[in-house]
Amino acid sequence: MIEIKISLVKNVLEANERIAAQNRQFFADKGVMAINMMSAPGAGKTTLIEDTIRSLKNELNIAVIEGDIQSTYDAEAISATGAQVVQINTGGACHLDANMINETLSQFDLNLVDLLIIENVGNLVCPAEFNLGEYCKVMLLSISEGDDKPLKYPVMFHEASVLLINKIDLLPYVDCSIEKIRQESLKINPDLTIFEISCKTRQGLNDWHDWLKALLLK
Amino acid sequence: MIEIKISLVKNVLEANERIAAQNRQFFADKGVMAINMMSAPGAGKTTLIEDTIRSLKNELNIAVIEGDIQSTYDAEAISATGAQVVQINTGGACHLDANMINETLSQFDLNLVDLLIIENVGNLVCPAEFNLGEYCKVMLLSISEGDDKPLKYPVMFHEASVLLINKIDLLPYVDCSIEKIRQESLKINPDLTIFEISCKTRQGLNDWHDWLKALLLK
Repeated sequence: MIEIKISLVKNVLEANERIAAQNRQFFADKGVMAINMMSAPGAGKTTLIEDTIRSLKNELNIAVIEGDIQSTYDAEAISATGAQVVQINTGGACHLDANMINETLSQFDLNLVDLLIIENVGNLVCPAEFNLGEYCKVMLLSISEGDDKPLKYPVMFHEASVLLINKIDLLPYVDCSIEKIRQESLKINPDLTIFEISCKTRQGLNDWHDWLKALLLK
Repeated sequence: MIEIKISLVKNVLEANERIAAQNRQFFADKGVMAINMMSAPGAGKTTLIEDTIRSLKNELNIAVIEGDIQSTYDAEAISATGAQVVQINTGGACHLDANMINETLSQFDLNLVDLLIIENVGNLVCPAEFNLGEYCKVMLLSISEGDDKPLKYPVMFHEASVLLINKIDLLPYVDCSIEKIRQESLKINPDLTIFEISCKTRQGLNDWHDWLKALLLK
């Protein structure tokens, strides 16, 4: 039983990698940079994506894939910015996989799109194991979640290229050391690029925008 | 391939139910009330458990099972309260299952224990599907996660008997309507008992303690 299960998990991950490679090729052919945005529930992904689209609307054409277990709540919020958005409801599954992304691609007109932001299901565990064909993974951590998260959920910190430490406006009101988050994250992943941001006070957002714009020159 | 996968998932859940039933019988024989505490990462489970043990130390003998992907950080914090605690590291798995609980039971002296709190892995999705043999499920939601969570993660709200709306001291600083959380949660689960709490200001903790003490009279 255990052997069957392990073999099946391996097959699932291998099949996922094959489709992720197809997606990656598709994005390259279209000249679209895709990023996979991940976090715990409520860390602020959707709010940041809305803000990013609005802030960069004269510079970048951004499209979005919204991953949720159910509901179209976030896709509606993104749609109000005027950006192209496709909702994926996983129907209970706790992460997006490459095939789900593959099936949405025909629903986009990506010819004029510079950046595709894929908002994964809010979950600090499972999404990190499934490549989607993205150029890189970006994770958000709200400081209200505490500074022990790198120690407790190391895989996502290891897989991400960028860590956005979010909601730093709450710093006076929560017990959290940003320095500890930085140190523990960099122990796991010395190449991690870290930004401290708040969509409320707008602190740090320029650095995030500059990073995105530089990404598109690659 | 899909049929094999579905059949395997069904087998896994059925096997889990059988072991959960054994655990439930074990707890009944020992006169121990077990609760399964679940939330997103950083909603405040460990802090609440520490506080609950210290607050009720003259009234209830509480033991804890700490579920984490890796690290013993939380078990050490609980251990400092003097309570019996056993750490389960899932080694990557995103939830506890009944077999993991079963394997820890020989490590406890449960004869004098009134209440066993099982702290699940921080994840708002997967833990809700795996019964552990608990009397009931208790979930925490930090208000910094936002008021859209019942709509987006309905399974956990459906499975829980109690919802603890936590960190209400942050209410002046975040965009969150507690009334909306209440309304949406009760739409999903009209029998849900809801408490609003803050370990920082101690608001609402007496009601939570009273609920726990009443539970043990059942």
